[in-house]
Amino acid sequence: MKTYRHLVQYYETDRMGVTHHSNYVRWMEEARMSVLREIGWGYDVMEQNDIVSPVTSVSCRYRKPTTFPDEVDIELYVEEIRGARMKITYLMKNAKDETVCEASSEHVFMDGKGKLLRPDRDCPELYEALNSI
Amino acid sequence: MKTYRHLVQYYETDRMGVTHHSNYVRWMEEARMSVLREIGWGYDVMEQNDIVSPVTSVSCRYRKPTTFPDEVDIELYVEEIRGARMKITYLMKNAKDETVCEASSEHVFMDGKGKLLRPDRDCPELYEALNSI
Amino acid sequence: MKTYRHLVQYYETDRMGVTHHSNYVRWMEEARMSVLREIGWGYDVMEQNDIVSPVTSVSCRYRKPTTFPDEVDIELYVEEIRGARMKITYLMKNAKDETVCEASSEHVFMDGKGKLLRPDRDCPELYEALNSI
Amino acid sequence: MKTYRHLVQYYETDRMGVTHHSNYVRWMEEARMSVLREIGWGYDVMEQNDIVSPVTSVSCRYRKPTTFPDEVDIELYVEEIRGARMKITYLMKNAKDETVCEASSEHVFMDGKGKLLRPDRDCPELYEALNSI
Repeated sequence: MKTYRHLVQYYETDRMGVTHHSNYVRWMEEARMSVLREIGWGYDVMEQNDIVSPVTSVSCRYRKPTTFPDEVDIELYVEEIRGARMKITYLMKNAKDETVCEASSEHVFMDGKGKLLRPDRDCPELYEALNSI
Repeated sequence: MKTYRHLVQYYETDRMGVTHHSNYVRWMEEARMSVLREIGWGYDVMEQNDIVSPVTSVSCRYRKPTTFPDEVDIELYVEEIRGARMKITYLMKNAKDETVCEASSEHVFMDGKGKLLRPDRDCPELYEALNSI
Repeated sequence: MKTYRHLVQYYETDRMGVTHHSNYVRWMEEARMSVLREIGWGYDVMEQNDIVSPVTSVSCRYRKPTTFPDEVDIELYVEEIRGARMKITYLMKNAKDETVCEASSEHVFMDGKGKLLRPDRDCPELYEALNSI
Repeated sequence: MKTYRHLVQYYETDRMGVTHHSNYVRWMEEARMSVLREIGWGYDVMEQNDIVSPVTSVSCRYRKPTTFPDEVDIELYVEEIRGARMKITYLMKNAKDETVCEASSEHVFMDGKGKLLRPDRDCPELYEALNSI
């Protein structure tokens, strides 16, 4: 598990006075990109290895509102890598350690031409790094 | 079922050349707000009746990419209203009638003070209107 | 002059209860892209002709707030095309015909390789179409 | 002068492969809010003192593109405080110390009821703090 901190921005709030719910999906990407970089598989390294991993699904369950200028800690778990597919879960907490959002995303690994890749077979270094999260 | 059309904007695309996946969550809100207005329960009417219905969860399954300047038709179904809760599903299609995204959102009805409301009991006109979708 | 209508979305508001000021820059793009398409120079036609026109500057003066679900009419004027440069101004009005924002953007015309293009000399059809706005 | 660092996010890019130009306006707000907090006048303190300072204008001149995952350093200068008005300028630089964007924003100080405030006269502590930037 790795943790990423997002500072809620003023422009992320809506007229209800809280973070607009669509932003949590963006924070998931922020957390994911940051953790991948941390384990040596940042976007540039992925590109050099001709690997892309588009999002195939997302889901968010909102537990408590957040707002500017809250700090949100996002715990990221690689739940499963099976074949060319990966599932990540996210646990987002406010400064009081209360869960504000539980989320997940699913991804598929492909090369630049769209051919599916199995990390365990086609890129064992990436597979190992992901499992170290 | 009601349909809403969203025109994908240039600023909704990302460097992969397609619509960034977080925008579909915003289109769900656009479609929902537009349909509610169409059935006589626009945001202003909800407010006058002291009813709010925050989003408690969302999920999206991405089937095919879209990009600027695609037209996306969003079919909206009120799946279930049970107690104070409502589930809506969304079927998004491109101009070739191909499904691009399947999504759902869950909501809870409350008054302005946060007290749960049951549309069937507390606001039968809203309940009936929602069931007419 | 051409007019484009934008419906303010809920997700465009902020916790002050009004449209976040950054969105007006996006509406300028929406209006521009829509008008270009209307005069036969949509994004796809530009691409086929290997022409891009990135934004080199923007400015907005905010006169009155707007909020969801306002309708904003955006009048677009091609102020000047000089050499490879174009300046567009925008006058945004609410339903009461009050000015809510005065804005401008500057653009440069280039081919796909980044070589500057002068519409009057290099693409007279585009030049004429732009002047017809 | 104070400096704020923004990490460009993937979701801030567009299909041209670079940061969408509307995001710079958001970064200006990020930088401003962060610097205000740093000098002891964060959003919460402003609210406690019943002071708001809405944006009345923005302008950006784009010099060089940025993209994910660039780091952008934003230098913020309080250019002028005259009566109830303040002008801030921003100089944004990439990791090579090249200017990527020159920007400015104008603000007005008001109390919660919309009455104009002159920081020098009505809130000398804020005036002094702003001038220390």
